[in-house]
Amino acid sequence: MQNRIQIFDTTLRDGEQVPGCGLSKKEKLHIGTALQSLGVDVIEAGFPVSSPGDFESVKLLSAELRDVSICALSRAVKKDIECAAEALKGAAKPRIHTGLGTSDQHVFTKLKISKKQVIERAIEAVSYARNFVDDVEFYAEDAGRTSNEFLAQVVEAAIKAGATVVNIPDTTGYCLPQEYGKKIKFLVDNVSNIDKAIISTHCHNDLGLATANSIEAVINGARQIECTINGIGERAGNTALEEVVMILRKHHWLNYDTGIKSEKLFPMSKMVSETMNMAVQPNKAIVGANAFSHSSGIHQDGVIKNKENYEIIDPYEVGVNKSSIILTARSGRAALNFRLGELDIFLGKEELEDTYKKFLELADSIKVVEDNDLQYLVKEYATVSK
Amino acid sequence: MQNRIQIFDTTLRDGEQVPGCGLSKKEKLHIGTALQSLGVDVIEAGFPVSSPGDFESVKLLSAELRDVSICALSRAVKKDIECAAEALKGAAKPRIHTGLGTSDQHVFTKLKISKKQVIERAIEAVSYARNFVDDVEFYAEDAGRTSNEFLAQVVEAAIKAGATVVNIPDTTGYCLPQEYGKKIKFLVDNVSNIDKAIISTHCHNDLGLATANSIEAVINGARQIECTINGIGERAGNTALEEVVMILRKHHWLNYDTGIKSEKLFPMSKMVSETMNMAVQPNKAIVGANAFSHSSGIHQDGVIKNKENYEIIDPYEVGVNKSSIILTARSGRAALNFRLGELDIFLGKEELEDTYKKFLELADSIKVVEDNDLQYLVKEYATVSK
Repeated sequence: MQNRIQIFDTTLRDGEQVPGCGLSKKEKLHIGTALQSLGVDVIEAGFPVSSPGDFESVKLLSAELRDVSICALSRAVKKDIECAAEALKGAAKPRIHTGLGTSDQHVFTKLKISKKQVIERAIEAVSYARNFVDDVEFYAEDAGRTSNEFLAQVVEAAIKAGATVVNIPDTTGYCLPQEYGKKIKFLVDNVSNIDKAIISTHCHNDLGLATANSIEAVINGARQIECTINGIGERAGNTALEEVVMILRKHHWLNYDTGIKSEKLFPMSKMVSETMNMAVQPNKAIVGANAFSHSSGIHQDGVIKNKENYEIIDPYEVGVNKSSIILTARSGRAALNFRLGELDIFLGKEELEDTYKKFLELADSIKVVEDNDLQYLVKEYATVSK
Repeated sequence: MQNRIQIFDTTLRDGEQVPGCGLSKKEKLHIGTALQSLGVDVIEAGFPVSSPGDFESVKLLSAELRDVSICALSRAVKKDIECAAEALKGAAKPRIHTGLGTSDQHVFTKLKISKKQVIERAIEAVSYARNFVDDVEFYAEDAGRTSNEFLAQVVEAAIKAGATVVNIPDTTGYCLPQEYGKKIKFLVDNVSNIDKAIISTHCHNDLGLATANSIEAVINGARQIECTINGIGERAGNTALEEVVMILRKHHWLNYDTGIKSEKLFPMSKMVSETMNMAVQPNKAIVGANAFSHSSGIHQDGVIKNKENYEIIDPYEVGVNKSSIILTARSGRAALNFRLGELDIFLGKEELEDTYKKFLELADSIKVVEDNDLQYLVKEYATVSK
């Protein structure tokens, strides 16, 4: 039996706070509905105290999405928690997400309180939130740069106060995978009541390590991953949902799985990119336009022989229609022949050789050779050989 | 003293083979010149046998770029190696990069030869290349899926035949960081002549793990990272140069550094993106448009108090002009006041409160509030208060 990893999607909160990504209530519901059908376990729908629009969105998603936990963010401040609780009132499975900074950097230069006060405020916030809902997630902001000893104290206190999930964010995206994994292991080993809560990861991608850190955390005992579609979010973004889901799926031996219906990943990525106006670069893992395109001669030749030579994921598995053999100056004879075959053009050995030479000259100048270019090349050839 | 990690840039080879990225000779020289001044150690300039254009490009870069190693790719095939050697003739520091597949998948379904023949071909190719140049890099294609024992045999044979660098590519982007790190450690511990060559990483990003895998390899003994600007390359691309360089720089305690002039990273990223027509997504680590933008109220407030609360890299360090406080519906009073201050507008407490309410309504509808919107909001306020 596989360990079930909870997928906590924060596209509508950490993703939506990005410049230019702001959504209307209706758009949030549109994406939220798709996230529910994708199979996420929790949707973080917003930060209700931050603006009237956000409050209304959380309220709407609470009323409409009944098969998923709806989570609302709050600082460890009564007014925030009350506002979150109010927005979540109609939810089938409401969760309040509350917390505060725990690193020396945050405690002393941002909050300007003592470490003892951090623990007191954590307890107060969690206890207060538990008056409204049964499911309370505590976040230790900047846990990535917090000493493991102090983090363990805060987490223990938060669980004792009633936290059902403890979130260990690498807020600034600083940690290396080894380091972040050890942090999770330290909590598993040193927090006496850790079995009463789920450990959650919330990684940022400032150094390109969010995905690796989340996976390393799971290997060390975390059971929830906070992530966003396309990895959008504050600054360089969050962990990309599609990446962690497919890593767990492709490494069966780790013995973890999620509830995500992977064939919906590509359509979901497109919807978020279009609705939130955030481009996905062609070389983005899993959902980029080129993620399954093979262009070098060596690779094309290998894929034509056997897909698994260069493909670890069948594109259909993530909702992409096909693996593409793109013809460029790096393509070999096998790829040219393969694509000609797709156009029902079958050449003899010499004809192919001749066409290949012309193809290379053309490709050196026009970069990508399309079907109509091929037809032209072959027509040319036919004329010459007559 | 810090361990020097070699940066092997393959933007012009693995990057350039991507659909739509093909470059003219002149464009290759333009980017190559910038890479040399960025401080990379090796430029993989192309795959000469693949097309006449590529041959000419390698020849041109060899003649023009004298302060960097110029590398040319070849299969383990005499004609490829001769062609690479010919193109590199004028180079100050020429390197031939040759090799073949070593995984069962590649050996049996692509090459269709025996494992003994793989070793023989590796030896032949490296020895043959050494007739032309002193610096020969051997690649074990699909090393990521090759058994560590067989990989060690091939690598040992290649070094004995004269390889100065041994490249261990995770060709399909399948490995987890732990797994890839252990592979490198296995070679360090089990290849008798490993001290005579540099171990190189070449990771692909199909699961979003290329950067983490490269770093884990360095921690385990690799001393060269193959990477590209913006992480472009076949499918989901290669390791992003800017990410590995900044990880090593930001984790001093690891005791590694590169020769990269980090303040040139952002301009370099822009040049590659524009010349090669490959968009960089806004949430790309280090070089994305939003990589240093703070938008949520909590974050903006924290950054205004002390930048290090949410920034681990000073944007100037990578050539970005400034950290931006972007005003959206998630911004708080502190951010609004900060931006008003930048416009020389200073409001009293009640004025600010009133303006903030209007600001939130506006932000809920127009998403990003710009300077001219702020001036309008304040003007409105002034009228009302009169």
